[in-house]
Amino acid sequence: MYTRTCSKLSKLSTNEIEQFLNSFDTVLTDCDGVLWLDNIVIDKANLVMNKLRDCGKKIFYITNNSTKLREEFVKKSTKLGFNCVKDEVISTSYLVADYLKNIGFNKKVYIVGSTGVSQELDLVGIKHTGVGPDVQTSIPNLLQTTQLDPDVGAVVVGFDEHISFPKLFKAGSYLKDPNCLFVATNTDEQFPSNTNFVVPGTGVAVAAVQTCAGRQPIVVGKPYTYICNALIKEYGIDPKHILLGTRCGFQTMLVLTGVTTLDEVLQWKESKKVEENELVPDVYLDKLGDLLQYLN
Amino acid sequence: MYTRTCSKLSKLSTNEIEQFLNSFDTVLTDCDGVLWLDNIVIDKANLVMNKLRDCGKKIFYITNNSTKLREEFVKKSTKLGFNCVKDEVISTSYLVADYLKNIGFNKKVYIVGSTGVSQELDLVGIKHTGVGPDVQTSIPNLLQTTQLDPDVGAVVVGFDEHISFPKLFKAGSYLKDPNCLFVATNTDEQFPSNTNFVVPGTGVAVAAVQTCAGRQPIVVGKPYTYICNALIKEYGIDPKHILLGTRCGFQTMLVLTGVTTLDEVLQWKESKKVEENELVPDVYLDKLGDLLQYLN
Repeated sequence: MYTRTCSKLSKLSTNEIEQFLNSFDTVLTDCDGVLWLDNIVIDKANLVMNKLRDCGKKIFYITNNSTKLREEFVKKSTKLGFNCVKDEVISTSYLVADYLKNIGFNKKVYIVGSTGVSQELDLVGIKHTGVGPDVQTSIPNLLQTTQLDPDVGAVVVGFDEHISFPKLFKAGSYLKDPNCLFVATNTDEQFPSNTNFVVPGTGVAVAAVQTCAGRQPIVVGKPYTYICNALIKEYGIDPKHILLGTRCGFQTMLVLTGVTTLDEVLQWKESKKVEENELVPDVYLDKLGDLLQYLN
Repeated sequence: MYTRTCSKLSKLSTNEIEQFLNSFDTVLTDCDGVLWLDNIVIDKANLVMNKLRDCGKKIFYITNNSTKLREEFVKKSTKLGFNCVKDEVISTSYLVADYLKNIGFNKKVYIVGSTGVSQELDLVGIKHTGVGPDVQTSIPNLLQTTQLDPDVGAVVVGFDEHISFPKLFKAGSYLKDPNCLFVATNTDEQFPSNTNFVVPGTGVAVAAVQTCAGRQPIVVGKPYTYICNALIKEYGIDPKHILLGTRCGFQTMLVLTGVTTLDEVLQWKESKKVEENELVPDVYLDKLGDLLQYLN
């Protein structure tokens, strides 16, 4: 019924909707464009999420944003009327720290990123080289004075508004050692923006580092599968019973308040490319708030 | 005889060598790794180039380096014993200026690069926004205070040791306009370096800008074909009579003092990939200086 046919939920029968709502026990939701835009809740999205939670669904707020601690996300979503605790937030800086902890990483991390990454590492007791500006610019000077820290065993790239030549120089130099891990929070090219400007996303720093390092990073964020596998393993979630996140075999529901348009979906549906077919959601809604009526 | 068989020149007969030397009237040469390493001439390379010039061959020194004016390259090569004038130097900053002049570009250029680019643009009378540090870092502040210059009609990316978030923000924003040209000097990932460090090359800035812009640049440097077409058109050179630069149908001679090893060449020769076969030189030498004996 709701398998890759991309039905509009409101067009299904009451029976079908009930069957759909009973088919999952876990909800993974994107934040920006689904729940809120900047600091404004998208119509009734908070009521829907709270209702799903009250119905006993397990909720995960998933964000590629690597600049905040999970605590800070809880504050923001609480302020916007979402009932939410830290364990329900999966941010990419948290995932990086969790990943390094899980593999028993006991060296130091060189960070191209922000306090979101450094503080999540602090919370799991992993050492790092700190964050912030690094603008020493003469190359002869860099070559002469840079001392690579022999304890560094990983380079983590997240969002860094202080990206600079010395940082790329150091990241690339650490990654020359094939044993040095290379981890990226996410690869989003741009931030969503309704201005005339292009606000470069984390993917820009990742592209820069991988170009000079000649290596590909492990990416923990969406749409890579690491994030799903982490959830499946750590929380014992059965992917068949999850809503959202198609690359891992989850059911997916699209809301049209984000970057994806229905036209794009219809193109993907007709496409001969598997990777585009995979993007077609099981069901869609104009906005998350439209789900509310079916939850009462 | 010397067609993609990758013969060692010294193994050929006197006749064959003479035939080879008469087969071209123009020599395009790479600089770093062929003529010099940093500030040291590679054994007799200057004598060979001067001799070829004396024999009446047309010489072009080709460099992807975009940080210097052609005048400055002349100074460097003269100091190292190469007889050389400005018109024999083809640098990527010169090529960018030449390209924009030729297409009748009459707007302003936003530069991610150095004075090499800005000064070559000055020489052909093309306006630009200047070079140097731009480190205003708060994103809200950038969004609030940035005024895009409506006269900008091109973004040029070269080597920039002052690469920064505001520069990527502005480059990406200008490139949002599909009519804004996107030109890169070259895409080298790293500078050649015999240290433990990785010195990021221009390709790193290019990767960063193209990631946030979601567009590919025109690249004027090696190994792209623009540079060859420019030479063929502007100097009336017949590609069949040129030595070096295989992508354009030139004859190629490899010297082993650069980044390429003979092992690599032998792999390319056996490869089933056309793009690797294309890299196989017609002849090779341990070093350019070995050619000297055949020129006397």
